[in-house]
Amino acid sequence: MSHKILVAQGGGPTAVINQSLVGVALEARRFSTISHVYGALHGVRGIVNDDLVDLGQETVANLEAVAATPASALGSTRDKPDLKYCQEIFKVLKAHDIDTFMYIGGNDSSDTVRIVGEEAKKAGHAMRAIHIPKTIDNDLVGFDHVPGFPSAARFVAQAFAGANLDNAALPGVYCAVVMGRHAGFLTAAAALARKYPSDGPHLIYLPERTFVVDKFLADVKDVYERYGRCIIAASEGIHDETGEAIITKLVGKSEKDAHGNVQLSGTGALADLLCEEIKNKLGIKRVRGDTFGYLQRSFSGCVSKVDQREAREVGEKAVQYAALGAESGSVGIRRVGDYAVDYPLIPIETVAGKTRVMEPELINAAGNDVTDAFLAYARPLVGSDMPEVAQLRKAKVAKAGVLQGDAT
Amino acid sequence: MSHKILVAQGGGPTAVINQSLVGVALEARRFSTISHVYGALHGVRGIVNDDLVDLGQETVANLEAVAATPASALGSTRDKPDLKYCQEIFKVLKAHDIDTFMYIGGNDSSDTVRIVGEEAKKAGHAMRAIHIPKTIDNDLVGFDHVPGFPSAARFVAQAFAGANLDNAALPGVYCAVVMGRHAGFLTAAAALARKYPSDGPHLIYLPERTFVVDKFLADVKDVYERYGRCIIAASEGIHDETGEAIITKLVGKSEKDAHGNVQLSGTGALADLLCEEIKNKLGIKRVRGDTFGYLQRSFSGCVSKVDQREAREVGEKAVQYAALGAESGSVGIRRVGDYAVDYPLIPIETVAGKTRVMEPELINAAGNDVTDAFLAYARPLVGSDMPEVAQLRKAKVAKAGVLQGDAT
Repeated sequence: MSHKILVAQGGGPTAVINQSLVGVALEARRFSTISHVYGALHGVRGIVNDDLVDLGQETVANLEAVAATPASALGSTRDKPDLKYCQEIFKVLKAHDIDTFMYIGGNDSSDTVRIVGEEAKKAGHAMRAIHIPKTIDNDLVGFDHVPGFPSAARFVAQAFAGANLDNAALPGVYCAVVMGRHAGFLTAAAALARKYPSDGPHLIYLPERTFVVDKFLADVKDVYERYGRCIIAASEGIHDETGEAIITKLVGKSEKDAHGNVQLSGTGALADLLCEEIKNKLGIKRVRGDTFGYLQRSFSGCVSKVDQREAREVGEKAVQYAALGAESGSVGIRRVGDYAVDYPLIPIETVAGKTRVMEPELINAAGNDVTDAFLAYARPLVGSDMPEVAQLRKAKVAKAGVLQGDAT
Repeated sequence: MSHKILVAQGGGPTAVINQSLVGVALEARRFSTISHVYGALHGVRGIVNDDLVDLGQETVANLEAVAATPASALGSTRDKPDLKYCQEIFKVLKAHDIDTFMYIGGNDSSDTVRIVGEEAKKAGHAMRAIHIPKTIDNDLVGFDHVPGFPSAARFVAQAFAGANLDNAALPGVYCAVVMGRHAGFLTAAAALARKYPSDGPHLIYLPERTFVVDKFLADVKDVYERYGRCIIAASEGIHDETGEAIITKLVGKSEKDAHGNVQLSGTGALADLLCEEIKNKLGIKRVRGDTFGYLQRSFSGCVSKVDQREAREVGEKAVQYAALGAESGSVGIRRVGDYAVDYPLIPIETVAGKTRVMEPELINAAGNDVTDAFLAYARPLVGSDMPEVAQLRKAKVAKAGVLQGDAT
């Protein structure tokens, strides 16, 4: 019996999500039992609209170029199917004789895979549904880490490495806001920017801890007095003790997506708010804020080679699992060495709709930095070829003694 | 007679400003007539504070590592010396027997070089003052282009290439704000991101043209109707017909620096304002804004090789001009081929305190894009190794005809 695969991409794009797509498309060519690989345009929406493309008609050269291109090449969607939506999906899958559905995405997308798989079973439709992981948030339960995160982490680390140098040259306070609604992994990656003892980020605020404005200001004051400057990494998802996002204190009306999430990205409001607090309460003059925004997930030309390879491999493994007759599941990533991984097929229920947050041992006691355990965890992911930075050793020249106040 | 060089770095850092510093430090080692190369910490402020370091005590390996590091390794300043400040500078330079002052910086720094040079002449102090160019704004009069701009342009192009793909995957309006107070070169570099006909940025707004909100909204509407999405590059310096910056319409109180400039960077307000206008007036739901902020001038790991080489060469040439007995001046960059440059020493008066803006032939008639002449000008600067992006060719699968409304 020959297999027909349909693959789609869901949720926010990443720098390596097309590696997984191309992993599926190319690996399938090795199996005579796989007759077709179709792609759906804009995720599950492309299925219910019957907007499919034949990936068998793509050239290898172009597929390889697409693999190296950030953001979902098939297009993506934020749609989250309900039962009715799922039945529409079936109708189209059945009409095209698709027996294997692969969805590349994060926890919302993995939940879609679960629903589609369950409904297929109920309907007596012999179809496997395989989840291929991706998310810059790194928040999939059951995973050591998730493709897309290492490249985004690398972007954040390179950004803070540069910001630290810029801030050392023209001292002041610099506060940058990083993506991550519930999980602080990406914000924590800012710590990978540090090399010399006085390097920033000096303070890292994660959504796993309550953000207390007065404590924040005391932290900034302390660092500023010590170094004459201060670099802060703050997650967009930081919230007060009631769980209310700090950003909603500023933004009156909030925009929500289909998953009921408040819009956190695509606005510079949080960084501006934090900077205003520092200026007004601490009286520091030079305070600057940045919001890394969409750059951190789709900047062209900043990718971790480790991430690239692993994203390709999860796509390949998905096809191998399907061709070898495995049931539905999620292609997992398990760390088996320092540094080495393998890709077990894990039950979709482990992942679907759940959110991993940073484990307590990765966050320092004060809740304003990461631990060495986090550095050991994250360092291998961003690749061994991070850009190097260096300082002058600055051998002092003896003062000429012509200034007022010099001891001459 | 042996020479003593003092070198300093002024103004905003760039990705390659340390190439010029290291060019000075290493090239000086070739000349037995040069006894010392000192560096001043934090620009001219380091001179008046007599905070000098001996670059002769740096190792070659560390200097090369510093050269590859973004942001001013000696530290920088926004101080602009007046006559009294200059007299303090002299006092220190004289006390250390410095006969050659080199200042790596933009148009404010070149004006400092002019003032110091003139005051030295008046005081009968035999000292040459050489300006070594750098600025991401590319706004020095008399230059083909300025070191620092090509790397920043590359960052902007890579950022828009990624943003374009992200926006194609999850369609909507995306508006990113780019640095550039008076000169639009860096914002214009967004155009280098385009490859396929429908690629963004679709609209580019420069400070060289009046920004009319109604015209802007009409432009966005038009693009959105054509492509179902729209990518906008806007300079932070866009202003209305009275010359008032669009951002000051939003930000009530404005912060000014020592040069009387309103703070434009380090806040996401302008992007947020433009996005609000689009949401409210055009009724488009998914509208996202980013402000590239400090990343564009100091991101670690995004550099043009052309820029790297040229920044090194202007430092080397400054030393050669000094060693060969040239008078004061600015190390120019002249394009002598497609693509090749040379480095004439040009009169400091050509550059000092003046601002180049984009020539009319580089901007399209509608004032919302660049011309092919700009692309031909800018393309060689970012280097021939820009990251490639690619699209799937998307061979359509015939619809199964199971959907309502299908012609079955």
